[in-house]
Amino acid sequence: MSIQAIAFDAYGTLFDVYSVNVLGDKLFPGRGEALAQLWRSKQIEYTQLRTMCSMYKPFWEVTQDALVFSCKKLGLELSLEAQNALMGEYARLKAFPENLAVLRDLHAQGLKLSILSNGTSHMLQSAVEAAGMQGLFSHLLSVDSVRKYKTAPEAYQLGPDTFGVPAKQILFVSSNAWDVCCATWFGYTTFWVNRQQAPLEELGVAPHGTGRTLQDVIDFVEKNRY
Amino acid sequence: MSIQAIAFDAYGTLFDVYSVNVLGDKLFPGRGEALAQLWRSKQIEYTQLRTMCSMYKPFWEVTQDALVFSCKKLGLELSLEAQNALMGEYARLKAFPENLAVLRDLHAQGLKLSILSNGTSHMLQSAVEAAGMQGLFSHLLSVDSVRKYKTAPEAYQLGPDTFGVPAKQILFVSSNAWDVCCATWFGYTTFWVNRQQAPLEELGVAPHGTGRTLQDVIDFVEKNRY
Repeated sequence: MSIQAIAFDAYGTLFDVYSVNVLGDKLFPGRGEALAQLWRSKQIEYTQLRTMCSMYKPFWEVTQDALVFSCKKLGLELSLEAQNALMGEYARLKAFPENLAVLRDLHAQGLKLSILSNGTSHMLQSAVEAAGMQGLFSHLLSVDSVRKYKTAPEAYQLGPDTFGVPAKQILFVSSNAWDVCCATWFGYTTFWVNRQQAPLEELGVAPHGTGRTLQDVIDFVEKNRY
Repeated sequence: MSIQAIAFDAYGTLFDVYSVNVLGDKLFPGRGEALAQLWRSKQIEYTQLRTMCSMYKPFWEVTQDALVFSCKKLGLELSLEAQNALMGEYARLKAFPENLAVLRDLHAQGLKLSILSNGTSHMLQSAVEAAGMQGLFSHLLSVDSVRKYKTAPEAYQLGPDTFGVPAKQILFVSSNAWDVCCATWFGYTTFWVNRQQAPLEELGVAPHGTGRTLQDVIDFVEKNRY
């Protein structure tokens, strides 16, 4: 497949969106897990509804909207302080433990690495810095420039446009099953980091590679680079 | 607002999608509720992903895909018999108890009633017959004709195209908060049948009317008809 570059999804793939559990649980004892789950699923739903209806709004704001809704739905009283604290946590999400070493390895191999994310440029820069990943990515690609969220084709098109090669020659890596399926439809070579051992989505499309952690991307690249 | 016609969402609004719980619980004791919930949310997710990626597939098939995925995810072994039984149940969903009387009342007032749904024409005809609602609707509008699911504008456009009046003069009624929000963005006059007493979605848009059951639509129409 001759992979020339890699585009990583950010949230859920490089950065652990469920790491907000800990603070959530401090603020709302026993409810952190439920809040993190609903917050994440509402965040994704809102990006998709806004994209289908051409009502774009930046990811930071959508993330905040999703937090407010989730607390209302779960009957949790969200003070302005708690909201700021949770959003602040979202700005410096924990990376998964293996990620930094994997990115350094791929970077050392001379591969062009990028992030292709729903997050705003500001959010991505902040997350990359917090995770000590500065200097590893040639591009932080935000859908904010096209004002359509994944899985719109305009969002995925940022990869080929940036690297000047067909999507097939870019490896798109995501932990989100829906993201990896739709990127495959778009034309990318794809790798699913299936951290939860979830079943594949029943969308009639499968990623080209699958693994348990980001570490498994290294093997896949080795076999498909030339 | 001068309402000339009404377009009802079908699944969740006229027909109770959670009524499959009972059979689900027979087949998988204690898991019927979890299955019904996940099945429904996957079904909606798949329609949205397929719409954003221009990978349309009819609702009957998407519904079956969502069922298969949900069973895998929940670790339930789905025999072909069980699959057919559950899909069969979906073809003749129970209507909410107040619906038939409300539809008859609105019909008797001379209002043009329609269904605007993700379901195929075949599915809608089957559900309408099973609920004894024959003769009450002038049109059963299926997004199948435009091959895009709600909340795509092409799907909502079926209403104004059919009735030959602006969306503002059509009352769109749905129990699905996302549906009612996006229909409001599109331009309909909207009514949210909030059966679960859920908080409003944080999308910066609100329906024109809200009630607890379909019965409340009658009052709203009376106040907004002329």
